[in-house]
Amino acid sequence: MARMTQEERFMREAIRLAKKAAALKEVPIGCVIVHDGKIIGRGYNRRIIDKNVLAHAEIAAIRKACRVLGDWRLEDCTMYVTLEPCPMCAGAIVQARVPKVVIACMNPKAGCAGSVLDMFHEDGFNHQVETEVGLMGEVCSQMLKDFFKELREEGKRKKKEAKDREAGRHEETGAGMSGDHDPHDPVHESGYGDKTE
Amino acid sequence: MARMTQEERFMREAIRLAKKAAALKEVPIGCVIVHDGKIIGRGYNRRIIDKNVLAHAEIAAIRKACRVLGDWRLEDCTMYVTLEPCPMCAGAIVQARVPKVVIACMNPKAGCAGSVLDMFHEDGFNHQVETEVGLMGEVCSQMLKDFFKELREEGKRKKKEAKDREAGRHEETGAGMSGDHDPHDPVHESGYGDKTE
Repeated sequence: MARMTQEERFMREAIRLAKKAAALKEVPIGCVIVHDGKIIGRGYNRRIIDKNVLAHAEIAAIRKACRVLGDWRLEDCTMYVTLEPCPMCAGAIVQARVPKVVIACMNPKAGCAGSVLDMFHEDGFNHQVETEVGLMGEVCSQMLKDFFKELREEGKRKKKEAKDREAGRHEETGAGMSGDHDPHDPVHESGYGDKTE
Repeated sequence: MARMTQEERFMREAIRLAKKAAALKEVPIGCVIVHDGKIIGRGYNRRIIDKNVLAHAEIAAIRKACRVLGDWRLEDCTMYVTLEPCPMCAGAIVQARVPKVVIACMNPKAGCAGSVLDMFHEDGFNHQVETEVGLMGEVCSQMLKDFFKELREEGKRKKKEAKDREAGRHEETGAGMSGDHDPHDPVHESGYGDKTE
C-alpha cells in the first residue's frame, strides 16, 4: 500500500469521527482543523442526539480550535471535512477566516461551497476560502450512501412492523389502517440526502 | 407615549441585550427568540471577550431555544435581532428552520438577509425564512453609530498616547517613530462597520 500523505491522514481522522456519528445513527460527517501540522479541533455530527442545530461537525471543531488558539480568528488553519458544508457551517468558516477547506465529497442538496451557493468565493464578503474537493471522496461518498441505505431499510422495517400491528388491531377492533405518509421521514429530515458527488 | 406593541417589546429586549455587548466593548447586537408569546432564547455578541467566532447573539439565542424546546428545529418561533444576520447566523437560522426573523436594521457590509446575499429566500435550500425589516430600526442603527464613533475616538486617543510616549522615547533615545498603520483596527476588525441602513 502506498504511503499516506499528510492530507490523507487528516481526512482519515475526519472519517474516523464521521463513523462515531454513524454509530449514533447521525448522518456520518466528521471534521478536523489543523494548525502548524497538528489537529487542534475535532467534531462530528450529533444534531439529533444533542437536540441542537449547532451540533454539526464543523461547528464543534471550530469551537475547539478557537479555544486552543484563544482567538475567534482561525487564521493559518486548514479544515478537513468529509462532506461539503451546509450554509451555517460555510458561514462560520467565512466568519472565522479559515483560509483553506479540504472537502471529501460534495452535497448537491444543501452544500454551500459551490453546490447551492458558493459562500467561499463571494466577493461581497471580507474573506474568501480556498477550497479543495475530492480527497478520499469516494470513501466518504460511499460511507453516506451506506448510511442512508441502512436508514431507509430500517424505516421500511419499522413501517412494516407498524402495519402488521395495525392489521392485528384491525382484526380485533375493525378500525381503519393509517396511511403511508410519514411527516418525519428520516432520510428527508436529515437535510442531506444520499446524492453526494 | 403610545402603548408598545408586543413586537416592540421583544425588540426592546433585544436592544437591552445589545447594550450588554456594548458595555463589554463588543459590537452591540442582541437577539431574542420567541415561542408561543414567550422569550425562550436570548443572546448578545461576545465574540472578542469569549475568543470564539460562534459567540454571536443569534447563535447564543438559538442554542438556548434548542435547549428549551428539546429539538434542533425551531419551528413556530420568531427571532428578533437588532442587526441583519451575518452568513453564519443566517445559515443557522435556515438550518434551524426558524419561520420568521424580524430585523431592526440592515448591514450592507456583511448581512445575509438581503444585503450581500439573501440566504432567507434561496430556492436551493429546503427552508425559506419570512423577513421583516425596520422595527425600531433607527434606534438600533443609532446605537451602532454611537458605538463605532466611541470606538474610533478611543482608537485615536490611544494612538495619540502611543505617539506621545514614542516622542518621549525619541527625545530620550533618538529612535524613529512608528508608522500609523494599525493591522488590528477595531472598526475594521469588527466585520460590521457603522454603515447600517
